[in-house]
Amino acid sequence: MLENLKIGILGGGQLGAMLMRHAIDFGLSVSFMDNDAHAPCSRYTSSFFCGDPASFEAVLEFGKGLDVITIEKEAVNIAALRQLEKQGVKVFPSPDTIEVIQDKFTQKQFLLSHRVPVVPGEAIQGKNELYQYENKLPRCLKKRRDGYDGYGVMVLKTKEDIAAAFDAPCVVEELVEIKHEISVIVARNEQGGVACYDPVMMAFSEEKFILDYQIAPAQLDEEIVKEATALARKIAEALKLVGILAVEMFITKDGKLLVNELAPRPHNSGHHTIEASTTSQYEQLLRAILGLPLGATELHLPSLMLNILENDALNADRPGKLKGLLEIPGAHLHWYGKKGGRPGRKIGHVTVTGNTMENVMAKAETIRKILN
Amino acid sequence: MLENLKIGILGGGQLGAMLMRHAIDFGLSVSFMDNDAHAPCSRYTSSFFCGDPASFEAVLEFGKGLDVITIEKEAVNIAALRQLEKQGVKVFPSPDTIEVIQDKFTQKQFLLSHRVPVVPGEAIQGKNELYQYENKLPRCLKKRRDGYDGYGVMVLKTKEDIAAAFDAPCVVEELVEIKHEISVIVARNEQGGVACYDPVMMAFSEEKFILDYQIAPAQLDEEIVKEATALARKIAEALKLVGILAVEMFITKDGKLLVNELAPRPHNSGHHTIEASTTSQYEQLLRAILGLPLGATELHLPSLMLNILENDALNADRPGKLKGLLEIPGAHLHWYGKKGGRPGRKIGHVTVTGNTMENVMAKAETIRKILN
Repeated sequence: MLENLKIGILGGGQLGAMLMRHAIDFGLSVSFMDNDAHAPCSRYTSSFFCGDPASFEAVLEFGKGLDVITIEKEAVNIAALRQLEKQGVKVFPSPDTIEVIQDKFTQKQFLLSHRVPVVPGEAIQGKNELYQYENKLPRCLKKRRDGYDGYGVMVLKTKEDIAAAFDAPCVVEELVEIKHEISVIVARNEQGGVACYDPVMMAFSEEKFILDYQIAPAQLDEEIVKEATALARKIAEALKLVGILAVEMFITKDGKLLVNELAPRPHNSGHHTIEASTTSQYEQLLRAILGLPLGATELHLPSLMLNILENDALNADRPGKLKGLLEIPGAHLHWYGKKGGRPGRKIGHVTVTGNTMENVMAKAETIRKILN
Repeated sequence: MLENLKIGILGGGQLGAMLMRHAIDFGLSVSFMDNDAHAPCSRYTSSFFCGDPASFEAVLEFGKGLDVITIEKEAVNIAALRQLEKQGVKVFPSPDTIEVIQDKFTQKQFLLSHRVPVVPGEAIQGKNELYQYENKLPRCLKKRRDGYDGYGVMVLKTKEDIAAAFDAPCVVEELVEIKHEISVIVARNEQGGVACYDPVMMAFSEEKFILDYQIAPAQLDEEIVKEATALARKIAEALKLVGILAVEMFITKDGKLLVNELAPRPHNSGHHTIEASTTSQYEQLLRAILGLPLGATELHLPSLMLNILENDALNADRPGKLKGLLEIPGAHLHWYGKKGGRPGRKIGHVTVTGNTMENVMAKAETIRKILN
């Protein structure tokens, strides 16, 4: 048991690395495949394959002889995963679940068909079709596929923005008035067991749509917490999910919950579960896909998660800044060890824990000053 | 910084694996060397070498081009480490520190020379010399080198036990009347910074001298806690330690502290720090050897650590028993993924956390019943 299981993970970035961290706890053998030969996970396993998770041939070859495959990114080849399932490899989440979610429009249709409230949006084939929205701006434009970390999302405010818009199949969404952005992580196993984490509250940088920081517990009324977790459970069940799912939601100015996006994999809104929850989202995913009982999701410490983005100030004195950060009690550094990088790229995160949220916020403020 | 550092670890068992788990947090590149080609760490790195950490040639070859070397076992070749230091590789703990500790008699002499109270003991060359103790039994006999997990330790009660004793250089110790066995983990970095964890209390199985379980916080008077941590700090400073050190101590029936043994590496008495302390002993070791500030050692949850030993009952239904264990909230499984094994061998551990020590003890009792 456990040590003889061969697990495969499509994608080898920081989410895969954090998953590996917990795979070690279970003594598992893990193979990774990533496009980038220098992806973080290439260093953390004896079984790394450089290949494209979106390629039929590469995924098929990678999956041969594995017991279970899971993903750390959505852009994977569904046909190959279906083929591997026929060969007896367990694929979790199922190819159907990944397929529905990897396209933001089919994802939205799926949610609507299950009466889940979503941000209203329509599909377009390319930029030409955007001009029909000229008098309905602002709108939010999202590529249907392959967006991540704010890439593939833009707000169209003026006609000029349309000229500069993506020319690809997109979803055009109404711009809702948002009071809060929250995320709920939910896990489900083959036996139908469901375990849900309480929501975290997120703050995004205005310009880049990239998560700036998040806090857990979210400072929300109990009612909306219940509603959000019930919605996440409902979606996990509708998807017949085996694995974990991040459900990003908006709380609108008039107090309604709308689902923004789903991610059927470990998610940055669950990073804090490593230090602050009884079971981390990464261990939870492993439990879910290995047919083990799901773990307790209780939060035992207030926490704040802060992304570290590539920036010039940081690069000017990286050792000094990282040491400054590590001086702060309860600052948990996760440094992704990415080689190279463009400004604004996520290169790490810090989870700050403490006895009270006030204490956590104060420490985070100090860290923010150190890093920038 | 960090991602470009090349770290080498001598030994590739479960302690190395848990160290790897935290090396991932810092994005480090880690190489391991172990005698066993199938050691747990062989699966957790792209850079595993099968070789003997006690061999001069193997260690020298392994260390070439690394930035920092550390150990997860004491039985390593000191001459090769000294040679590597001359070539500019940082070796932490220093070869001097490891050398003093890897022999239980020189370790004892070192402690005595620093006025640290120890269990009284004498060195013998082999079994023949044991007969002089015939009328002074019982005594505790310990091999000077290479003992671990109770191997290399026996109690001599009768003349017949002498006939069956180890025939090797040993330390013959007085059998002290023990009220409690405790362990303190202390870290020190190159800058002389010291951070000390509070003691844990250990319970050993009577027959095998192998740790059965341990609890943190230890249920001790504040005075003895202060005394024990002060002693650990003093030893770390006397050794000019860079790294971490486990100081196993006895509290005698008349309330005195005696140092039993030292280990200059991660230690099973610090496993609980992964889930229950702000900074785990593994992260602390990395901080110490990389010149980073030492982390906070505060315990934020009561915990109990239970070893999992190879046994027939467990093997008869491993999946059922492991699932049963994972049903318990706050049971953190660490399954070492060792291949093959003899009865009584450590194959994993569980750290149980909860809100109160009573709650933790009750859960541990349930787990003990499940596993046996």
